[in-house]
Amino acid sequence: MAGYVIDRDDYLRRLRLIEGQVRGIARMIDEDAYCIDVLTQVASVTSAMRSVGLGLLDGHLHHCVVDATTVDAVCGEKKIAEAVMAIERLLRA
Amino acid sequence: MAGYVIDRDDYLRRLRLIEGQVRGIARMIDEDAYCIDVLTQVASVTSAMRSVGLGLLDGHLHHCVVDATTVDAVCGEKKIAEAVMAIERLLRA
Amino acid sequence: MAGYVIDRDDYLRRLRLIEGQVRGIARMIDEDAYCIDVLTQVASVTSAMRSVGLGLLDGHLHHCVVDATTVDAVCGEKKIAEAVMAIERLLRA
Amino acid sequence: MAGYVIDRDDYLRRLRLIEGQVRGIARMIDEDAYCIDVLTQVASVTSAMRSVGLGLLDGHLHHCVVDATTVDAVCGEKKIAEAVMAIERLLRA
Repeated sequence: MAGYVIDRDDYLRRLRLIEGQVRGIARMIDEDAYCIDVLTQVASVTSAMRSVGLGLLDGHLHHCVVDATTVDAVCGEKKIAEAVMAIERLLRA
Repeated sequence: MAGYVIDRDDYLRRLRLIEGQVRGIARMIDEDAYCIDVLTQVASVTSAMRSVGLGLLDGHLHHCVVDATTVDAVCGEKKIAEAVMAIERLLRA
Repeated sequence: MAGYVIDRDDYLRRLRLIEGQVRGIARMIDEDAYCIDVLTQVASVTSAMRSVGLGLLDGHLHHCVVDATTVDAVCGEKKIAEAVMAIERLLRA
Repeated sequence: MAGYVIDRDDYLRRLRLIEGQVRGIARMIDEDAYCIDVLTQVASVTSAMRSVGLGLLDGHLHHCVVDATTVDAVCGEKKIAEAVMAIERLLRA
């Protein structure tokens, strides 16, 4: 079971908001909005997306990694190695 | 005139792709996809959004800031202060 | 036991290199080096520091978090909550 | 003249603090400090380094780029392209 299941509706709501913000940025560009105002929205989407990522990671560590570790040490190690690579991708994104 | 005008269609196309990616992440969560796969998509959206931000900033510096500086030093200074604050928001996002 | 113990010498070596790089940046500024060259070094130190952070986090998750989880679920949960906060600080830094 | 000249002493002071922080992290690792406490210091150094980078960039745009633009449009364009690449390096670091 995915780690985010309990908060699924919350994630879907946040992603709908982000989708609306991305569409809003396209509209701003279409209407010649001032660059700096567009950039403020871009930073806001990036930040909202990072929060979603951190939340998913939190759920993953709390559920999937803990479960795997309890069942089997080798399996837990693999899950952690995988999670660290995901954290690295978030940090470098 | 906004700094992104020449590349407007390119930005609109990239934002449509990002919007589709955000919708894809919602679908993955709705279908219980594996957390790490969702996180990979989150990092990809964040990275695509950063590229859009960098492109807009590049256009802004090349057009708006250069124009303002050529017309009037004080006005140029203000534009640069404003751009630096936008860069800071992108860095901290 | 801290998660980084096995690689302790490697961390100390990398931190000495970073320390030298920071001193090098001070020297560049003292000698009026070109701003862009200084900025390249700043990005390099930030990147090296992030790698140290990721390494420490990896060690922490592999050792401390796995150990805590094996001993006691509540304790494991606390360790993970703490690790997620540390990841957030790295992401926002 | 480099853009940071007026604030040179301030940069040198901040870099000495960062250098001391990096040395402090090495000491923490040498003394088996708790991983999470070390990570907090790593995030703090990364953040301080980013602030130095932003300050240098601000000085560079205000001085070098404005000067180049006033003298010669082509030269100004080159300086801006170079600054945008430096911003990208900071963002990806």
